[in-house]
Amino acid sequence: MRITALAGGVGGARFLRGLLHHARQTYPLSPDSDPLQLTVIGNTGDDITLFGLRVCPDIDTLLYTLGGGIHEGQGWGRSDESHHLAEELAALGAEPQWFTLGDKDFGTHVYRSQLLGQGMPLSAVVDRLSARWGLGDLGVRLLPMTDTPVETHVVVTPEGEPDGEQRAIHFQEWWVRHRAELPAERFVVAGLDRAAPAPGVLDAIREADVVILPPSNPVVSIGIILGVPGVRDALRGTRAPVIGVSPLVGGRPVRGHADVCLRTIGVEETSAGVAGLYADFLDGWLVDEDDPMPGRRGLEVVRRPLLMSSVEAAADMAGAALELGLRLRAERAPA
Amino acid sequence: MRITALAGGVGGARFLRGLLHHARQTYPLSPDSDPLQLTVIGNTGDDITLFGLRVCPDIDTLLYTLGGGIHEGQGWGRSDESHHLAEELAALGAEPQWFTLGDKDFGTHVYRSQLLGQGMPLSAVVDRLSARWGLGDLGVRLLPMTDTPVETHVVVTPEGEPDGEQRAIHFQEWWVRHRAELPAERFVVAGLDRAAPAPGVLDAIREADVVILPPSNPVVSIGIILGVPGVRDALRGTRAPVIGVSPLVGGRPVRGHADVCLRTIGVEETSAGVAGLYADFLDGWLVDEDDPMPGRRGLEVVRRPLLMSSVEAAADMAGAALELGLRLRAERAPA
Repeated sequence: MRITALAGGVGGARFLRGLLHHARQTYPLSPDSDPLQLTVIGNTGDDITLFGLRVCPDIDTLLYTLGGGIHEGQGWGRSDESHHLAEELAALGAEPQWFTLGDKDFGTHVYRSQLLGQGMPLSAVVDRLSARWGLGDLGVRLLPMTDTPVETHVVVTPEGEPDGEQRAIHFQEWWVRHRAELPAERFVVAGLDRAAPAPGVLDAIREADVVILPPSNPVVSIGIILGVPGVRDALRGTRAPVIGVSPLVGGRPVRGHADVCLRTIGVEETSAGVAGLYADFLDGWLVDEDDPMPGRRGLEVVRRPLLMSSVEAAADMAGAALELGLRLRAERAPA
Repeated sequence: MRITALAGGVGGARFLRGLLHHARQTYPLSPDSDPLQLTVIGNTGDDITLFGLRVCPDIDTLLYTLGGGIHEGQGWGRSDESHHLAEELAALGAEPQWFTLGDKDFGTHVYRSQLLGQGMPLSAVVDRLSARWGLGDLGVRLLPMTDTPVETHVVVTPEGEPDGEQRAIHFQEWWVRHRAELPAERFVVAGLDRAAPAPGVLDAIREADVVILPPSNPVVSIGIILGVPGVRDALRGTRAPVIGVSPLVGGRPVRGHADVCLRTIGVEETSAGVAGLYADFLDGWLVDEDDPMPGRRGLEVVRRPLLMSSVEAAADMAGAALELGLRLRAERAPA
């Protein structure tokens, strides 16, 4: 069973860990079983170069979460982490100091930066990082959406100065430093229009049995992946049902700032608004049990509790999305 | 009082810390005093790029030792150090694993590499590192011998294979990994003939009141600095007495592998042999109390215990070298 998922960071990673948990519970490994093969297409739009090192926050959150090294409380970064290197950088007066990087995490960034510096494409680096985290043994293949360096910037107006001069800051500075509180005019994704999908990305969408969009941010995570030339066409053209999971519960994002991002691009902060962003390829849509969104022709809406309060809760959500996908697939299949 | 010293790593750093200790004891700061201004010209010939980061072992040992951050037991690296980043690199299978780098130490390398990558010359980076370590407050100015990347390589014959094919390995691999036990044919210093002395290096030698060569390795530390075009001429031409401290005690180096290095370049492993390397500019020569080396015309030989078993012992040695330099300077001065 080939599942392909598009994913951002924390929310996507927790959802996909739930999917793996669900699969382990539901499909015990046996010689006859059809094991779940999960291809994850990770967002690289929030990548950033810090201290000369290339940091891929979403890719790393996926690696650490699926590989068992994540800091559970934070949702990002490594468990049992120390911060001696960052303290030394602070002693040296190095900037920025608003992005937390632990010592083990720095290991990932130093390693990746060295290989990128030697000319290795990011996808090959991610292969190596995936091996370190045992993703292959879990049946998971992680692909960056593109090997082309892409960076999301946010055009902001300085707070309290409505007539102040607009400037573009890196997405991470807006997201982490300003907690998305600095009024954003728009997002500008440098390099996206010239980005090529990483090897395997389009095939993974075209050849999947089910495509899943986890409850990642629809604007700055999923939305960026959809902007890689060819990805949207592949989603429109794939024979696999495309199942999305709404990131909104009670009209608000469980985590992150999806509502702010939706407002910035002028889209209603509702599950219907988000589904509208995926309208040209979305077949099934998982929304929270109290979500008022009605179904419509060509879009099957299913209600489930959408709070990933534990691995089991995430597994239930992922199982529901998978079940919906398999049902729609069976309905499509020639008799 | 302007003192200029050429220095390698551990031995040079400990000697110079002793010199500062001596100066604090001997010349209490007062408005009338002539405070010691120490310019240290550090060897960069054993610099190495590891994991894509530029590591300057001798410069860093000087910074950490003079600045109070050194691991006393090792003589190199930071005190109270952890190794989480290196453990992560090992988990990733990154090579080499024979060079120990701690988390705080990595902070130095990441910071330096970022600035070098932005085009800042090494000497400007060292200025910033010196500020972090408060060297200015100590009256110390640390200069790399050159801003030109220089790397010492060792041409070796594989051990146990006298007819084996010769190959060149980085000095650090020979020194750290093979503990100088792999038979060395010769040293090749890539880039040295085209290296330009860093800003201030030649003036510091020309304008010094006393020039001191600490008991650093005469071949792969002092010898490399002497190979920077212009440095040797500056030493020949300076009006300051040049005082050296023999690295040999009882015919052997106290630390490091100076004897092996001397053999490799075909020089007798004695204080006389080392003094011969400096013959064209050396005025005074501090040797161990039991050293049989005789004085000779133009070279004043002074005997002192040369074991730097404590900061105080190093201060005594450094004080003796300084005293010898000041005496020779007074003898030279016009009446």
